[in-house]
Amino acid sequence: MPYQASVSEFRFLLDHVVGFERVADTDRFAEATPETVDAILTEAGRLCQTIVAPLQRPGDTNPARLENGIVRTPPGFGEAFAAIAEGGWIGISADPDYGGMGLPLTLTTAFNDMMAGACLAMQLNPLMSQGQIEALEHHASDELKALYLPKLISGEWCGTMNLTEPQAGSDVGALSTKAEPNGDGTFAITGQKIYITWGDNDFSDNVCHLVLARLPDGQPGTRGISLFLVPKYIPDADGTPGERNSLQVVSLEHKLGLHGSPTAVMEYSGATGWLVGPEHGGMAAMFTMMNNARLGVGTQGVGVADAAFQLALAHATGRKQGKAAGSGTIVEHADVRRMLAGMKADLFAARAITLACAVALDMAKATGEDAWAARAALLTPIAKAFGTDIGEEIASTGIQVHGGMGFIEETGAAQLLRDVRVTSIYEGTNGIQAMDLVGRKLADKGEAAFRLIDEICAGSEAARAEQPGLADAVYDAAESLRDATEALVARDPADRFADAVPYLRAFARVLGGHFHLVAATSGEAARTKLARFYIDRLLPEHASLLAGLDAADAVLDLSPDELAA
Amino acid sequence: MPYQASVSEFRFLLDHVVGFERVADTDRFAEATPETVDAILTEAGRLCQTIVAPLQRPGDTNPARLENGIVRTPPGFGEAFAAIAEGGWIGISADPDYGGMGLPLTLTTAFNDMMAGACLAMQLNPLMSQGQIEALEHHASDELKALYLPKLISGEWCGTMNLTEPQAGSDVGALSTKAEPNGDGTFAITGQKIYITWGDNDFSDNVCHLVLARLPDGQPGTRGISLFLVPKYIPDADGTPGERNSLQVVSLEHKLGLHGSPTAVMEYSGATGWLVGPEHGGMAAMFTMMNNARLGVGTQGVGVADAAFQLALAHATGRKQGKAAGSGTIVEHADVRRMLAGMKADLFAARAITLACAVALDMAKATGEDAWAARAALLTPIAKAFGTDIGEEIASTGIQVHGGMGFIEETGAAQLLRDVRVTSIYEGTNGIQAMDLVGRKLADKGEAAFRLIDEICAGSEAARAEQPGLADAVYDAAESLRDATEALVARDPADRFADAVPYLRAFARVLGGHFHLVAATSGEAARTKLARFYIDRLLPEHASLLAGLDAADAVLDLSPDELAA
Repeated sequence: MPYQASVSEFRFLLDHVVGFERVADTDRFAEATPETVDAILTEAGRLCQTIVAPLQRPGDTNPARLENGIVRTPPGFGEAFAAIAEGGWIGISADPDYGGMGLPLTLTTAFNDMMAGACLAMQLNPLMSQGQIEALEHHASDELKALYLPKLISGEWCGTMNLTEPQAGSDVGALSTKAEPNGDGTFAITGQKIYITWGDNDFSDNVCHLVLARLPDGQPGTRGISLFLVPKYIPDADGTPGERNSLQVVSLEHKLGLHGSPTAVMEYSGATGWLVGPEHGGMAAMFTMMNNARLGVGTQGVGVADAAFQLALAHATGRKQGKAAGSGTIVEHADVRRMLAGMKADLFAARAITLACAVALDMAKATGEDAWAARAALLTPIAKAFGTDIGEEIASTGIQVHGGMGFIEETGAAQLLRDVRVTSIYEGTNGIQAMDLVGRKLADKGEAAFRLIDEICAGSEAARAEQPGLADAVYDAAESLRDATEALVARDPADRFADAVPYLRAFARVLGGHFHLVAATSGEAARTKLARFYIDRLLPEHASLLAGLDAADAVLDLSPDELAA
Repeated sequence: MPYQASVSEFRFLLDHVVGFERVADTDRFAEATPETVDAILTEAGRLCQTIVAPLQRPGDTNPARLENGIVRTPPGFGEAFAAIAEGGWIGISADPDYGGMGLPLTLTTAFNDMMAGACLAMQLNPLMSQGQIEALEHHASDELKALYLPKLISGEWCGTMNLTEPQAGSDVGALSTKAEPNGDGTFAITGQKIYITWGDNDFSDNVCHLVLARLPDGQPGTRGISLFLVPKYIPDADGTPGERNSLQVVSLEHKLGLHGSPTAVMEYSGATGWLVGPEHGGMAAMFTMMNNARLGVGTQGVGVADAAFQLALAHATGRKQGKAAGSGTIVEHADVRRMLAGMKADLFAARAITLACAVALDMAKATGEDAWAARAALLTPIAKAFGTDIGEEIASTGIQVHGGMGFIEETGAAQLLRDVRVTSIYEGTNGIQAMDLVGRKLADKGEAAFRLIDEICAGSEAARAEQPGLADAVYDAAESLRDATEALVARDPADRFADAVPYLRAFARVLGGHFHLVAATSGEAARTKLARFYIDRLLPEHASLLAGLDAADAVLDLSPDELAA
């Protein structure tokens, strides 16, 4: 069952659900005409189906490996990357001055979603470069931009992010990698970084590492961290890669999934690096990159969910068994139908959230309005955590639909679960996302959240005439989300964290109800049925999640000794 | 972090939660004195920790393989199996006339739980033999019993179950394997069986296959199926394995997990078999074996959940990171604490359900009372589905607690998820369990269910003086379960299936609340805190699950074409 890009689904979401027309109406994105959007989606779909999807199994069975210090990538990955790069796909949203297309991030998000469904291990590579491009566009000097951006956007070079160290994971501030001035404006970077996605490859001319490190006068914690660009080969002024820098891949991890993507331990031994952004201002630059990457990772979950749904549906409609009526295949069984409907309904909800987040980012960029920036900031952790959780859940349900065949690797369903499992961990675990939501993103006393909840309520009221039952359910859910938000905002931020994950999930559930309700009023009968399924059966989860909100004490009441007892 | 058997937890559950004293009070199980129970639990724990747990990683990295038709098992598995067999552990509950200990199944369940936590791939082997022993005890002729039971109970021989065929999975009735009379009382078995767990090994003197097949006059469907015992080597009258039977392992599956356990495609080419039970009565015999095995599989989920919890707790209390107060380890973070408390609370709930199911089976055996048999029949699908779902969820949360390390295979957390994933599929998918619950198990007009709900309500009332808030919550939840049960019973059975899975999960949630409430009144402060966590934060899920119950039509409303749109 070959992967099929959901081109028409993206078109529907952009046209009817997430308000993409507002993006296209801005001067900044005036080029994103319906024709252009159509062409982008169609071509992206074709590329993902024909070039990227065939890598999925080979990438799993021929893991990337380290040979005498050189990373060997799975067969076909180099060729596929070349095709992605040649089509200009890495820089869909990058600055045209450096070779990008300057199109909305919403289209990049749709493309990344499709590519994730086709082959997540491959998709990770351009995703890393996209994050680096974004960070350099915002924070690098003009010289660095001129030298690096065209190469990264064209795909001649690839980019990576180096945050984690063995003792510094979620707590980035604990890092110990050092940066010492060389006296010529460059810095000597020394330290070890772990979990470096696509830390090296054998198909690009250079690999550019963005590395967090501490200058000699950097204070402890996150405020003393600076960001450096550290290329594998040091380029001359014309951008020709020259001398080998003092950095190397020490080892590759043996992972649950994503075998095609090399995850490296990197050793920097006085490697030459260039400062990006101000001294001790590394975290701000990193957050630019991470916020982009967080939406990107949420999108990965959605893309894999789509692939898992397609595989399960194909199995269910192809497998003849039992006394099923109709087609005689297992899709006639109520429980199989329930699983598939649930997968499809959650896929829609999670995808709408990631695209709405991208729209907000595009609007913020195009209008400079704080309200859009706040909307994007609010939606980013929700898109990341819900998208990836749903990715895992749908991948697991996909296995279940396959029955015994789901446990057999050749089926491909198990690989999707193995691959997607890390997405709820990297770029900030989903727990970190939820803490970001209830902490930083409610630090405006909930203003951005309440504005969104108001919109959901207004949408429900508008839909009431057409879909009274569904509209009332969404309205009530939004109101209980409002109550929960008020309760959290009233607390000291530190007292919100035990409820962070349930609250984020409840927020996503309500958003999903909202988007389904919008879809239900589109006039397509199947959309209304799917919305009813979601609102009747999945939306109620929000209530059980919020039910525990008054019980925060129960979490920390249990001491570690009591947990171990 | 070596696996620690939860010996004192089993003691607490038996003594205070699941009413094991009633089993020990029967004549049949009079030998199950507190001293004996203590000795069994302690020795079982020691065996699992020292002999079985060390197999976990090697079994994964050295998968069972097929060499020239011979199955080679991972290093150490043969020695460990010998130790299990020598200790008499396979036959804890088997008939003493044939070498068993005749002890309650509740103790076998505790042992299986521990062994599953130590190494699931190894545990599967004796579990299969236990199922075969149970089936033969109930359905085989005296001659077959005399010949086979002592060998299976001693572990000299191993047993397997052969149900599935490529076109007959959940629909066993579609099988096409043939059994033709040889004229001497034996039958010639011909056909292919797939997904045969431990289909062969290189450490037992014989492998005995229970095979479902159709006699020439067997009608289509399940009513035409008979059960046959088909040994790898045909034993003489003294039980010495002789001539090689016409059966072979064609291939082993490449699976997501359980690499240490060979999953075989078996080919029977006129192999000699002996009828077990009456002609065309194979399904009844198979159900004996499957009901036992279903509880056994639920227990597998629980055991893996325990291992995953232990690993995560050890990581969380050992990993220093960030500005955490107290110990300075990540267990001080509210969200990590929330994850661990949730794992522990669900582990307790699922384990109490499996043990309560075992107690009911023991009581049915000891007293012959239909009410106990009905209780066991009701609890079996719940124990199977909830135990395995919780196993998967806790294994996945365990990965999450590890952060990035959770995705690295060496950590061991990922293997637990890979291994446990099949438990919600085999021995009847969890969807099949749920259909069994709302169909067959409510066919008594809900009598057994209502009786259990009455007990839960009575328990809540008894606990009200001591734990008013918790007791009220459990009481109310039980009442909404009663309403839902009444609604389902009022429907035609075929119209219950779309709600089967949510209903089963809600039932398990309420049972978990009941058992936590019982534990909360034990006087241990930590038990009360854990109960509060469960009842405040996890029990409310039942309401959201039951909320969709009136919306059954939404499931089948979506046609396959609409799902694919």
